[in-house]
Amino acid sequence: MEPVLFYGVPQGCSFGSIVALEWLGLPYRLCRITHDTPKDLFAQFNPVRQTPVLLLENGTALTESAAILQHLANRVPERRLGFAQGTPEHDRLNETLAYLNTTFFSAFAPLWASYDMEKNPPVQEMLRAMGREKVAKAHKELEAMMARREWLVGNTRTIADAYFIGIARWATFHGVAEPRAYPRIHAHIQRLEADPAVIFAHAIEEERPATSSGGFKGHVALEDLRSRLAA
Amino acid sequence: MEPVLFYGVPQGCSFGSIVALEWLGLPYRLCRITHDTPKDLFAQFNPVRQTPVLLLENGTALTESAAILQHLANRVPERRLGFAQGTPEHDRLNETLAYLNTTFFSAFAPLWASYDMEKNPPVQEMLRAMGREKVAKAHKELEAMMARREWLVGNTRTIADAYFIGIARWATFHGVAEPRAYPRIHAHIQRLEADPAVIFAHAIEEERPATSSGGFKGHVALEDLRSRLAA
Repeated sequence: MEPVLFYGVPQGCSFGSIVALEWLGLPYRLCRITHDTPKDLFAQFNPVRQTPVLLLENGTALTESAAILQHLANRVPERRLGFAQGTPEHDRLNETLAYLNTTFFSAFAPLWASYDMEKNPPVQEMLRAMGREKVAKAHKELEAMMARREWLVGNTRTIADAYFIGIARWATFHGVAEPRAYPRIHAHIQRLEADPAVIFAHAIEEERPATSSGGFKGHVALEDLRSRLAA
Repeated sequence: MEPVLFYGVPQGCSFGSIVALEWLGLPYRLCRITHDTPKDLFAQFNPVRQTPVLLLENGTALTESAAILQHLANRVPERRLGFAQGTPEHDRLNETLAYLNTTFFSAFAPLWASYDMEKNPPVQEMLRAMGREKVAKAHKELEAMMARREWLVGNTRTIADAYFIGIARWATFHGVAEPRAYPRIHAHIQRLEADPAVIFAHAIEEERPATSSGGFKGHVALEDLRSRLAA
């Protein structure tokens, strides 16, 4: 069977891996992970129980967005979603992806954490204030980085752009650091939201009819994948 | 001039990049960044003003631990601090490094943030509790990952081990998730702390006499590097 990407809803950071799969064009399947997914079953694929997970043809489960995205880019180097090891472009991609995967991503952590503090309004407000500040700082930094770059890493789209669009939408979701205040970020979001792969990923998350411009071969249930997992 | 690594004190996450440089054996220099370093000057090398930064021979400044470590590993592939693109070992390294660089690293964020809340003891205690919980969870996950692995990624030391030892020490520093409660993590820390490269990195941070087993060529001042920076 084709590789299977486990994606999480709602607002999964696995969104970028769906976009990258669409851009890649190779056959793949999807497996939906929700709050109702049995935790013990999912833990067999990823003990950390986070999405995304990419189940490979040999039964290996690869975790972590950065590792999955690099793996996908390496599958079809001609697509130029990544770069050859040892080149300056590879360094710049690793740098941008690491920034997005650490500072930009984790800026939202206090906002997500605030959801668990409904019974303690002062703490909830403190976490929201902390999140607002961190997200604004990260947006300001990213806006500066995007000067003189057409895409996040130079002049062509890469896995960094795919990852970006899955995270950047969280600012609007949480009502913080309104992207319109950051013209380059805003323009980049608008451009990506018009991309068929991004439109497809939204439709998949929201369970609307989804038209693949890549190699999507349908969903598969988690239970049906257990026998494929390598020991 | 040789590449120059900018490292931060105290307790810098740049520690792992010093260890990797020592393991690599190539000539390099160090530049010390402290709370007293002029912010505007440092921002010329890294607008985000974080360490580590690796100033390359061509005047390019590379940021983000994950990117710097991969760059170093790629310089001398025979050292096997990393792996060739497209191999399963490369995937596993990317996965482990991403886990350390996101979940493991960011688990400590509430503990660092608590330092800024001295005037608000209830919030400070809430952040410490949140940090304790996140660090304990990350330790439990990492302890499970380390079953059947001699080093963090299989049977040889890699850049992931170098990065790990710079972060793992924070548990002791903050007095949380006492490593002795996690036997594999504890043993791995003990092993790494006995490594000449780690002993050297501690001595550098603490400004004690440091004996390089690699290619350390001395410190250089930030002011003296401005002319080397590419436009």
